[in-house]
Amino acid sequence: MDIEQTKIPQATAKRLPLYYRFLNNLHTQGKLRVSSKELSEAVKVDSATIRRDFSYFGALGKKGYGYNVEYLLSFFRKTLDQDETTRVALIGVGNLGTAFLNYNFMKNNNTKIEIAFDANEERVGTEVGGVDVEHIDHLEEKLGGISVAILTVPSSAAQGIADRLVKAGISGILNFTPARISVPSDVRVHHIDLAIELQALVYFLKHYPLDEENIEEEE
Amino acid sequence: MDIEQTKIPQATAKRLPLYYRFLNNLHTQGKLRVSSKELSEAVKVDSATIRRDFSYFGALGKKGYGYNVEYLLSFFRKTLDQDETTRVALIGVGNLGTAFLNYNFMKNNNTKIEIAFDANEERVGTEVGGVDVEHIDHLEEKLGGISVAILTVPSSAAQGIADRLVKAGISGILNFTPARISVPSDVRVHHIDLAIELQALVYFLKHYPLDEENIEEEE
Repeated sequence: MDIEQTKIPQATAKRLPLYYRFLNNLHTQGKLRVSSKELSEAVKVDSATIRRDFSYFGALGKKGYGYNVEYLLSFFRKTLDQDETTRVALIGVGNLGTAFLNYNFMKNNNTKIEIAFDANEERVGTEVGGVDVEHIDHLEEKLGGISVAILTVPSSAAQGIADRLVKAGISGILNFTPARISVPSDVRVHHIDLAIELQALVYFLKHYPLDEENIEEEE
Repeated sequence: MDIEQTKIPQATAKRLPLYYRFLNNLHTQGKLRVSSKELSEAVKVDSATIRRDFSYFGALGKKGYGYNVEYLLSFFRKTLDQDETTRVALIGVGNLGTAFLNYNFMKNNNTKIEIAFDANEERVGTEVGGVDVEHIDHLEEKLGGISVAILTVPSSAAQGIADRLVKAGISGILNFTPARISVPSDVRVHHIDLAIELQALVYFLKHYPLDEENIEEEE
């Protein structure tokens, strides 16, 4: 599988989780095939790019048929789901952090939140979604080799905590705070901004009514 | 401005919020210019696509200089921030819904959560983040022409609520539940799956260490 993966350009690989999410959806609905146009609309990648991406997986769409959902999905499962479970720490057990802890991450993939941290004495020592909440003062000593962190602290605390996480050996941060954080170039930060997501939806509603898109030529 | 916008292909427009988020970040850090490679890494779109996209905005990067952050940002602000505020309803005032209500959406954009709904009698009649929580039974009568909804209900309730929202005239849904929902083709659904976001981060940490990327040729 490693040999297969080295053939996939990084830009393509970055779109795999998007494709995977949408195909899983189609599969649940019992759909057997999908056109690159449908995929394009759903994942916001142009059709030409999708066709090029899929050609790397050996998935060649047929004119008037599209792609086989089952085939694509089994490829993505194999590629995305690794054998090894990645341990994750969550920092900030407020509303968003609690939502994360209650979410069942083990259902579809191999990540597991193993420990949570908070500054609030009332939360420390409790268990949320089956995960122990430790005091943020003990971050460094309790992290125990975990390399991925979810950041759901208040914005004002984000940079300070990020600095401590980096020093403690974290290599990836999923930043759910509105704050933009600076980290060394070897640390990967993915930023999910709730306001931006809402703004994007509103923008497309205003400028690209779905009815118009349906007029575009089917491929 | 409408004339300008019709020149931008839809696939390009779909990437504007991504570009906007990253450029805003750079601007806050005081950066004056950015290369398409830096942008590519941050927004997960290949450099060639970025260069083509930016050419539509009249932004032509200079070799060895890159793009002017200020110019791009002012273009994106003008394009994304409309004069009119979009009213939004939030359904499901659990942890995630509460996090949303406490988030200040008016800070950077023109969307405003005006009303929230929940089935829990204890939450109904309260105010969260300055927004009144109404009973879900009164959804249809209290929606008052709102066309965008954020869905933060339990998965099991997602499809039923989505059906009611569509009947009540909602044209866009930001779905934060793990459930895949089916809607008519003229209703736009954006789906944010917390598990997928975490999975994506872990995947790139495993397969694309940032050190390797730095070896790639600067443009």
